Amino acid sequence: MFDLTALARRGQSSAKKLATLSTVEKNKALTAIADGLRANVQSILTANQIDLAHADENGISKAMQDRLRLTAQRIEDIALAVEEIIQLDDPVGKVDRGFTRPNGLEIVQKRVPFGVIGVIYESRPNVTVDTAALCLKSGNAVILRGGKEAYHSNLALVTCMREALEQSGFNPDMILFVEDTSREVSRQLMRLNGYVDLLIPRGGAGLIASVVENATVPVIETGSGNCHLYVEKTADLEMAVNILENGKCSRPSVCNALETLLVDWEIAEAFLPKAKKALDAHQVEWRGCDKTQAILGDGVLPASQKDYETEYNDYILAVKIVDGIDDAISHINQYSTRHSDCIVTKSLDFSRKFTREVDSAAVYVNASTRFTDGGEFGFGAEVGISTQKLHVRGPMGLEHLTTYKYLIIGSGQIR
Amino acid sequence: MFDLTALARRGQSSAKKLATLSTVEKNKALTAIADGLRANVQSILTANQIDLAHADENGISKAMQDRLRLTAQRIEDIALAVEEIIQLDDPVGKVDRGFTRPNGLEIVQKRVPFGVIGVIYESRPNVTVDTAALCLKSGNAVILRGGKEAYHSNLALVTCMREALEQSGFNPDMILFVEDTSREVSRQLMRLNGYVDLLIPRGGAGLIASVVENATVPVIETGSGNCHLYVEKTADLEMAVNILENGKCSRPSVCNALETLLVDWEIAEAFLPKAKKALDAHQVEWRGCDKTQAILGDGVLPASQKDYETEYNDYILAVKIVDGIDDAISHINQYSTRHSDCIVTKSLDFSRKFTREVDSAAVYVNASTRFTDGGEFGFGAEVGISTQKLHVRGPMGLEHLTTYKYLIIGSGQIR
Repeated sequence: MFDLTALARRGQSSAKKLATLSTVEKNKALTAIADGLRANVQSILTANQIDLAHADENGISKAMQDRLRLTAQRIEDIALAVEEIIQLDDPVGKVDRGFTRPNGLEIVQKRVPFGVIGVIYESRPNVTVDTAALCLKSGNAVILRGGKEAYHSNLALVTCMREALEQSGFNPDMILFVEDTSREVSRQLMRLNGYVDLLIPRGGAGLIASVVENATVPVIETGSGNCHLYVEKTADLEMAVNILENGKCSRPSVCNALETLLVDWEIAEAFLPKAKKALDAHQVEWRGCDKTQAILGDGVLPASQKDYETEYNDYILAVKIVDGIDDAISHINQYSTRHSDCIVTKSLDFSRKFTREVDSAAVYVNASTRFTDGGEFGFGAEVGISTQKLHVRGPMGLEHLTTYKYLIIGSGQIR
Repeated sequence: MFDLTALARRGQSSAKKLATLSTVEKNKALTAIADGLRANVQSILTANQIDLAHADENGISKAMQDRLRLTAQRIEDIALAVEEIIQLDDPVGKVDRGFTRPNGLEIVQKRVPFGVIGVIYESRPNVTVDTAALCLKSGNAVILRGGKEAYHSNLALVTCMREALEQSGFNPDMILFVEDTSREVSRQLMRLNGYVDLLIPRGGAGLIASVVENATVPVIETGSGNCHLYVEKTADLEMAVNILENGKCSRPSVCNALETLLVDWEIAEAFLPKAKKALDAHQVEWRGCDKTQAILGDGVLPASQKDYETEYNDYILAVKIVDGIDDAISHINQYSTRHSDCIVTKSLDFSRKFTREVDSAAVYVNASTRFTDGGEFGFGAEVGISTQKLHVRGPMGLEHLTTYKYLIIGSGQIR
């Protein structure tokens, strides 16, 4: 069996040194990685071909195969993403606050890396490099456990990064790869207390649920987004149609895409036909409540409770006509994954009520939920969107890959 | 069986309203609680007598019985502690940051309550009121699950607080009490995903370990403190003796008390006899390495690895002579619970090395570890000392009982 503890011990050992590297040194390591990727395009593509050749037997859909596929251009994009991370501010060593107590004790709260971060992820090989680069920049060693469907691609990328580190004088164990993609080893990673300081699952609802159930190490949940658009009765209907179309159709596979439309009954007859027409251009499938069906007729399938719970990640929309803002907020707080939800309204009172009462990471007034993104928020590259309330909520960038410690300096104070 | 889910649902329902209360309203509720405690001293003392009468059969040590005992003065102190919480700044609604994006989107990061906080704790009844008051002030409903040894005292205190809330027009379900003190119900509380937004265990190592093992809801670990003092060879020996005596003897039962002394071999013969003499006045038992025994003779019992792992919370000290700062840091990072650790030194280089490399919440130079405390740090009353790295590290005050959300306001922006 794969010796995960031995691997984690190597991570822990490299993390000690990594935590003390200067920004200049870390950027040098990242530059070596970007250069290494460019120098090894051919071997990475060859490995990727093996994964693609196994994709059908692994039951990977065509859409997922596209996400799995690497090209010379995509590898160049990955290298460019590493170079973007070089440009980001280093959060390590930042003093959050500092003060002197009446007894003369000087206390400083300073940001430090977590230590060893475990990441369990699915599918896209670019996650391998993005995550490793973000962890490195924030001073953390990383243990990467990717999916079996991208095994050869991930291994080639990690090998390339480790060689780049080694050749430029860094400890390659800052980036570690779990070569055994079995569930047992994945579960072991979730329970490696004392070795793994933080675990981040990046993937679908099934992966997140398994981590929540099994993990004993600290976890940040990311990614699951059942996002809502509520069109309030005073809404500018044209704006609402635009936000709906953008939220649902600009990129349905991502977590900040819209899944459910809620419409005030007073404006349903005016709004729904316009909305339907706009989404018909994208072949969106509608699943609506009885009232929605009554207004739009045959073009709408019936919606079940299951539909309201589902993150489709596809050209499907759940629709419900509601009795006003309280009904809408109550529906959202029941079904939302607390990612991103939006109201379209002209009412100041209702905009304030909605933002106050909807319990989600990002609450929007008159703007598309598609903006919930580290780049769009101006935070730079992100590890994911946190849907939990502990430590970080919403876009999770470099600073959220750090913790802090208090340094207290005195001259013999006792209590 | 006790219906914990029904209880949690009541908490969830009260939390929605509580999250929107103003600071003035929350302070009014806290005032009612303080007044209620003072008006019900007799019934609280009567309930406490029942717990004390059962203490022997419950196998409660005399020291623990003293912590369990309430008096009119102690109840007054508890009421005063509630009034101190009234004086603290309300963290809810605080804007951490806000900015406008190039596309005109206005983004604000605002602090909000978690929702429902579960607290599992042991022994001292004052924790019941402290915790409830801190949760209320930070806008969270609380589910309190105290130990069976304080059951009647806790129930009386909660009843008194709930009545005070009800009589002053608030929903009493902001403070809920788990009347079933069985392990099954406690475990259920650890796994109440969707109802409990945060779980805080306050107690000994056994409780913390059980929560880490069983919890599926987000947890903040508190309390366990295996704290170290490292006397470096350049140390002012008199200062080191004072810090040792204060750390070990001023209050051995608390988590920021010292447990292990590490001494550089170059100064061991000069330092240890002075240290031994100072602690002899407090009847401290010494458990040392071979070299310590060689220097101090019969007065020192042999120390095993188990001793270095143990948080004694008692007048016992583990002692080890080390080969210099690397040896000391390595020992600390192996055995420390990452709570508070201290170096006594005159060397600038070594003080920087120690604070950089020791991976603990509070790292001290030339001051007693006993200062790791919300009050001593100037943060006000605390829920505990976090020994984890996620969300909060070290003293955990009101602001750490909140999370944040992003409010994004636009004028129809799409992406």
